Amino acid sequence: MVVGKSFPVCLVSWRNAVRLSRALAEMIRDSYNPDLVVAIGRGGFVPARIVCDSLMLSTLTSIRVEHWGVAARSLESATIRYPLPIPVRDMDILVVDDVTDTGKTLEVAVRYLREQSPAGIRTAVLHHKTCSAFVPDYHVVVENSWRWIVYPWALHEDLAGFCESVIGGEPVSVDDILSRLKERYDMVPARRDLKGALRNLIIQGRVEPVKKRFLSKRARE
Amino acid sequence: MVVGKSFPVCLVSWRNAVRLSRALAEMIRDSYNPDLVVAIGRGGFVPARIVCDSLMLSTLTSIRVEHWGVAARSLESATIRYPLPIPVRDMDILVVDDVTDTGKTLEVAVRYLREQSPAGIRTAVLHHKTCSAFVPDYHVVVENSWRWIVYPWALHEDLAGFCESVIGGEPVSVDDILSRLKERYDMVPARRDLKGALRNLIIQGRVEPVKKRFLSKRARE
Repeated sequence: MVVGKSFPVCLVSWRNAVRLSRALAEMIRDSYNPDLVVAIGRGGFVPARIVCDSLMLSTLTSIRVEHWGVAARSLESATIRYPLPIPVRDMDILVVDDVTDTGKTLEVAVRYLREQSPAGIRTAVLHHKTCSAFVPDYHVVVENSWRWIVYPWALHEDLAGFCESVIGGEPVSVDDILSRLKERYDMVPARRDLKGALRNLIIQGRVEPVKKRFLSKRARE
Repeated sequence: MVVGKSFPVCLVSWRNAVRLSRALAEMIRDSYNPDLVVAIGRGGFVPARIVCDSLMLSTLTSIRVEHWGVAARSLESATIRYPLPIPVRDMDILVVDDVTDTGKTLEVAVRYLREQSPAGIRTAVLHHKTCSAFVPDYHVVVENSWRWIVYPWALHEDLAGFCESVIGGEPVSVDDILSRLKERYDMVPARRDLKGALRNLIIQGRVEPVKKRFLSKRARE
């Protein structure tokens, strides 16, 4: 996350995330009957579990794709960090993730899975950003203009990044942080979640508490 | 699920399941710093993902423990169906599942994980039933009297089983099913979820639709 840069952020509620996951299952129901559901770690864990519930599929596993490289998104690269735990030859696989952003994750995942000689591979996400180089087989929402989507299962992590980006060299209050988040990202998180994120930043030594105010350690050094 | 048998059922809402998962993370925060979080498939997928968010842990994977054997719970056995995808020697592992019921799942999982020579293993669940032979290191709720807990990520699957158990040889309406679920399991599911479960039973050929009523195929044969 780049400090000072402004972009729109969309907070997805649990209610909406569950609704989207169940809608994704309905899109898959009549067209594909997977032998194995593969959740992409970590973003696909919750939608994959809900898709399995809706379609009554018991065969759920996960792989983890790790991103690395420089901050510029175009130069980012990805690799399989946790591979499949079982052979999948001749299986029909359904890969589930939360979002296609650059598309790198699913591109790398599908390339890796193809090497394992399954019978078929289909991919499914909740939100597909049209800027993605990878187009999934199933998606519930198309995002034509880019925005950062915060899923409820990544709320504290994402919020920590956003908070850090608006806390600078001068101590700021929780209210200051809330108004900066609103101004810069058009984002209104719950105060309780914001406090959870701030606590993580303090534990990790990224932010310092100063008399009920917060100071960026990074900006200070 | 045994037809005709009555027992109490607890439906856990998403709101409550998320609250319990975040509370579980807070219990772990100051006492254990895992190198790897292992979700037990499939019940542990959602709580494990939320625990990772609360504690800002990015190393999440899964294993699947499969249950098999006869219906009597005491004779049930379990085995590792999907093993770990990576070596975990000298790692501190956190194992996350939704519930300890017989305790068989976590018993088998921990025995398997110990063989991989990690530095440490701790186990965490949302609900711990005191009838369980396995006592987890962390649990949010203690269940002293046995009841079936339906998590929101297993709602359609569990509901299908309950519906099937109350549909017999005579056609019944959705209202009949709702009142039987209330009577037998003290359970009041949303009509929309009930319809989702019934659709699955019809697709799987376990229940037959007869003029807006439903008939058990099993009982009929």
